[in-house]
Amino acid sequence: MVAMSEETPVERAGFVERAIVRHRAGESLAAIDHVAEEIPVALVFNGISHVVMMATPRDLEAFAYGFALTEGVVASAAAIFDCEVFLRPDSAEVALTIAQEDFVRLKDRRRALTGRSGCGVCGIDSIDMLDLRPEALPPALIQVDLPAALARASAGLRAHQALMQETGGVHAAAWCTPDGEIVQVFEDIGRHNGLDKLIGHLALHAIDMRLGFVFLSSRGSYELARKAARMRIPLLATISAPSSLAISIATQAGMKLVGFCRQDAWVDYTPDIGI
Amino acid sequence: MVAMSEETPVERAGFVERAIVRHRAGESLAAIDHVAEEIPVALVFNGISHVVMMATPRDLEAFAYGFALTEGVVASAAAIFDCEVFLRPDSAEVALTIAQEDFVRLKDRRRALTGRSGCGVCGIDSIDMLDLRPEALPPALIQVDLPAALARASAGLRAHQALMQETGGVHAAAWCTPDGEIVQVFEDIGRHNGLDKLIGHLALHAIDMRLGFVFLSSRGSYELARKAARMRIPLLATISAPSSLAISIATQAGMKLVGFCRQDAWVDYTPDIGI
Repeated sequence: MVAMSEETPVERAGFVERAIVRHRAGESLAAIDHVAEEIPVALVFNGISHVVMMATPRDLEAFAYGFALTEGVVASAAAIFDCEVFLRPDSAEVALTIAQEDFVRLKDRRRALTGRSGCGVCGIDSIDMLDLRPEALPPALIQVDLPAALARASAGLRAHQALMQETGGVHAAAWCTPDGEIVQVFEDIGRHNGLDKLIGHLALHAIDMRLGFVFLSSRGSYELARKAARMRIPLLATISAPSSLAISIATQAGMKLVGFCRQDAWVDYTPDIGI
Repeated sequence: MVAMSEETPVERAGFVERAIVRHRAGESLAAIDHVAEEIPVALVFNGISHVVMMATPRDLEAFAYGFALTEGVVASAAAIFDCEVFLRPDSAEVALTIAQEDFVRLKDRRRALTGRSGCGVCGIDSIDMLDLRPEALPPALIQVDLPAALARASAGLRAHQALMQETGGVHAAAWCTPDGEIVQVFEDIGRHNGLDKLIGHLALHAIDMRLGFVFLSSRGSYELARKAARMRIPLLATISAPSSLAISIATQAGMKLVGFCRQDAWVDYTPDIGI
């Protein structure tokens, strides 16, 4: 029940190769790294596009079955009559045919949402609406001595993570001066919420977001890179790994993206972008 | 510009206290733990509810400013004329008044989505639409020797995380037999996608989800608990921390929820639920 598009096989490894530079203890090593693939996946029920999820392009038939069940679109897997996966280089579509009864209920639920729904990332329903083409940023206004700044930010973050220390379960988003001093930290159960809180605070206090950098305790995924690039933040540093789409967004925007930041090590995912 | 509701102060600690039992090396200790708070937060622009985000109820004014900016609702913070936070015990609303020009653009964008949008969790726009009241599960059909099963699952997971070993940037969702043997693992950049892939696979293979348990490499948040409870999975185990709302969902459903799982330790967040 899995169909192939013309261009690519239906299943992929789930990671892609990217040229990176590893920095550790003063040494730099150019390498090819494996990065988790993230692409928009549209779920289409009986011809109507319902939702777009950012996902890793493996096991998409199982993903669509699971989503339909856990979100209550169908009452049982038996109500899914057909499932076709169309995998393209930069996106995917899964077209499901479901029982008329479930489809009518879905349409009714969607009608109840008319004109009141949508959130810009996961609430959108069509890949065309995704904002995957950030404008290129002007040249950075700051210079950052990356080894020193990332070491300082890495060393300093934990002391600001009050809620993490209480609960062990939240992400932090920090605003740093170009030399890595942590100025402000916001915490949230959602990493994108933490970044939104930080950006909102900076905006409320009229702090120029071109004059510092953001340091995140989390991974770097699409929405984080997109949000940071939109605010013209010149450097996004994360403690964990980035996704393929985050690298793509950062590269297009000309925003420097570094990951796996430690006190004496980090990985540069945008080696061609200076700061 | 921050208003208070009648019931509660406008700012909270961001964590709540929950009665838990810590298990470590054969010892059990009942305690009060601090758990990261997760509540639905509705963002309302000029009287129209736009989106509901699951967030930690701190700094909600900054959050709303940041969301409006990073999602392109407003072009600058100057276009936000007023921002009122209404914090209730189990939810929050942030009402923003934005420039007419931005509001017209937002309405146009939403009109383009008419009848085609919404995703059941973050795509919904009104808290009333959130499914926070799971049905109680029938008594579990399996018995689980938790120390042995969690030790086995914890020891076994890493060998199944092929994509994590390649990239360092994806979550895993595992299906386990009652004695903790890992049967199947799916990986994804999104933890909820990993769980959906697993559940879809189980459904496609007609595997009874009442007869095993799910082990996740991630934190336990609202949507994971809700998805698992909907499928009548009796036990959800996670390597990292749960949110307050995940505990609430699990407790209402009668689904056992354990977190911080290690080979010789775990925390029971639903001590009153047996398995």
